[in-house]
Amino acid sequence: MSEIQPFQVMEIWNRAKALEAQGKHIVQMQIGEPDFTAPDPVIAACVDALKQNPIHYTSALGMPLLRSAISSHYRDRYQLDVPASRIAVTAGASGALLIAAGVLVNPGDEILMPDPAYPCNRHFVRFFEGQVKNIPVGPETQYQLTRELIEANWTEKTRGVLIASPSNPTGTMIPAHEMRAIVEVVQARGGVTIVDEIYQGLTYASGFASALAWSDRVFVVNSFSKYFSMTGWRLGWLVMPEECVREVEAFAQNAFICPSAPAQYAGLAAFGAETTRILEQRRAEFQRRRDFLLPALRDLGFSIPVTPEGAFYIYAGIERFARDSGRFAFDLLEEAGVAITPGKDFGANQAERYVRFAYTRSLSDLQEGVRRLGNFLHK
Amino acid sequence: MSEIQPFQVMEIWNRAKALEAQGKHIVQMQIGEPDFTAPDPVIAACVDALKQNPIHYTSALGMPLLRSAISSHYRDRYQLDVPASRIAVTAGASGALLIAAGVLVNPGDEILMPDPAYPCNRHFVRFFEGQVKNIPVGPETQYQLTRELIEANWTEKTRGVLIASPSNPTGTMIPAHEMRAIVEVVQARGGVTIVDEIYQGLTYASGFASALAWSDRVFVVNSFSKYFSMTGWRLGWLVMPEECVREVEAFAQNAFICPSAPAQYAGLAAFGAETTRILEQRRAEFQRRRDFLLPALRDLGFSIPVTPEGAFYIYAGIERFARDSGRFAFDLLEEAGVAITPGKDFGANQAERYVRFAYTRSLSDLQEGVRRLGNFLHK
Repeated sequence: MSEIQPFQVMEIWNRAKALEAQGKHIVQMQIGEPDFTAPDPVIAACVDALKQNPIHYTSALGMPLLRSAISSHYRDRYQLDVPASRIAVTAGASGALLIAAGVLVNPGDEILMPDPAYPCNRHFVRFFEGQVKNIPVGPETQYQLTRELIEANWTEKTRGVLIASPSNPTGTMIPAHEMRAIVEVVQARGGVTIVDEIYQGLTYASGFASALAWSDRVFVVNSFSKYFSMTGWRLGWLVMPEECVREVEAFAQNAFICPSAPAQYAGLAAFGAETTRILEQRRAEFQRRRDFLLPALRDLGFSIPVTPEGAFYIYAGIERFARDSGRFAFDLLEEAGVAITPGKDFGANQAERYVRFAYTRSLSDLQEGVRRLGNFLHK
Repeated sequence: MSEIQPFQVMEIWNRAKALEAQGKHIVQMQIGEPDFTAPDPVIAACVDALKQNPIHYTSALGMPLLRSAISSHYRDRYQLDVPASRIAVTAGASGALLIAAGVLVNPGDEILMPDPAYPCNRHFVRFFEGQVKNIPVGPETQYQLTRELIEANWTEKTRGVLIASPSNPTGTMIPAHEMRAIVEVVQARGGVTIVDEIYQGLTYASGFASALAWSDRVFVVNSFSKYFSMTGWRLGWLVMPEECVREVEAFAQNAFICPSAPAQYAGLAAFGAETTRILEQRRAEFQRRRDFLLPALRDLGFSIPVTPEGAFYIYAGIERFARDSGRFAFDLLEEAGVAITPGKDFGANQAERYVRFAYTRSLSDLQEGVRRLGNFLHK
């Protein structure tokens, strides 16, 4: 536990709240939660279920109907054949990562991860006394691991890799050919590939490639929180190899009993036509925001050498303005009322050079944020 | 993972389902889930919240209103002063145990537990590479640990104790004087006491004593699943010492983000007057069932030397009928259509001598079960 750092962004949050309590207006560009909430058909499905069904425990791996719906979603939307038997419904992506780490990681096992990365992903490995080997990545590899980096860092202690596409904080994806190469090299070495695909669906270019296209032996973590706007429900899923189903079931049964049943009923409506129409409008709105914010930040002098094509983040270099992104973020909040996340929350690799912008608030908020940034930087 | 055994009761379940599919009627006395579901005011509170509130992430430790409601519940019903700041809302008792074990257990730490005990509780310790020292207990100590047993088994590797009152599978409680002695002796040795109190409220005698009455340094796991009949929602709570709040918050934030928000909204209505009226009727119904089943089983020749005064279980000795409780349970299912749980699911201490009866189905079901048991035993 002593290695689990509090997020620096929590201090930013608390200070932003204190400033708001003083009557100041803060532009929130630090929030990793969509401003949209569950679409009406999802809410309606949950309300109907609450009125009609007794809410009992479900199977540890989730309601069969929901597992089938996720399987159909892979087929209909991504032309991927992922049988329901290989899908476990979980308490958010957090639950999926906890189960994957619990089943796969033994004390001393080493897991390769890129730096920067979403910090919780590291912590799941540490919970089970695994070691994370953070591999510095930069714009030359889209801030992602590659086959070469994995080969160069693999040792006899290495159990596998944990990667994310699209990535938080960088918004970048692993190209299809590279994803395939990673899956193959890890498999050839007898390791395990775990891929965080929780931003699947929130992409603004054609480059998304699920690891599931290349192997039925990978573990894929997914979520209803981002594309489906169902954060507070805590609903996600894990795709696993067929031979791990019994072990995953035993772990899930013991550690969770089951995911929250009302959330599962709601999830059944997440793939319907009307829901999809709403979600695609939202995706277009995220894209409009990115298309505004990305050139605006570049114009202000932030260095963003790789165009982020997914999620709702921009990972921006501040080397033209400051040397310490933590200090920069706190000064920006105090002096200009704009909240962002310092790079330190995502790792140690040149973290002081980077900050993360989230475009999870309205276009007008983002416009105001950019205006304030301009004044702050050129005052 | 290799040490986590599948529950034998799952085989009983599967076989019972197969028999039902053949048209046979099975009396279910193996189920650890109440037949009652969430009271109407709880459902209504959730429906209202879904219609009125966007369902966002909540604080990692739960909604402040719900933490306060649990604190008030302790004060109003048990005359215990447990400030909301020491209460974390969790994804069921499972989530509370996972957090407690994650924060407290380091590899090699030894946790003392009674045998028999609820098997998942052991597994949470193992998840984090702790060791469980199973201490055989019998009727002479109400199938519970005592101060003497703890003192006799404490070594320099011991980190603390994990006990349950009322207990699953025995339905027995730790008397107040003994609970106090346990808390004090563990504290004197610098250890930690974790108490599973998930059956609090479901007691049929005046002997219930929360460990919280004796110390504000204990960890107490509780749940909305049993007394509050909210199984599928996955909502529970953890009471912790004040000095552990930040560490628990960091672990909960990383491992769960937050408990499911719709369940939390529902939980806000769990302590209202109308809900309490409904729940007390149900408690009385459980007591009626116990008051029927306990003497009936004793009359049939099962040995039940300690009267179970809580939860909804009777742990019964079969030494007059058979030597192998697993075989006994399977034969009973095949020949008489009665499903029960073999002792092996709860540990290794004379497990072959015991079976667990659950009275989670109607009185008429229990009457039919007893009739079939009589025919089976005396054929």
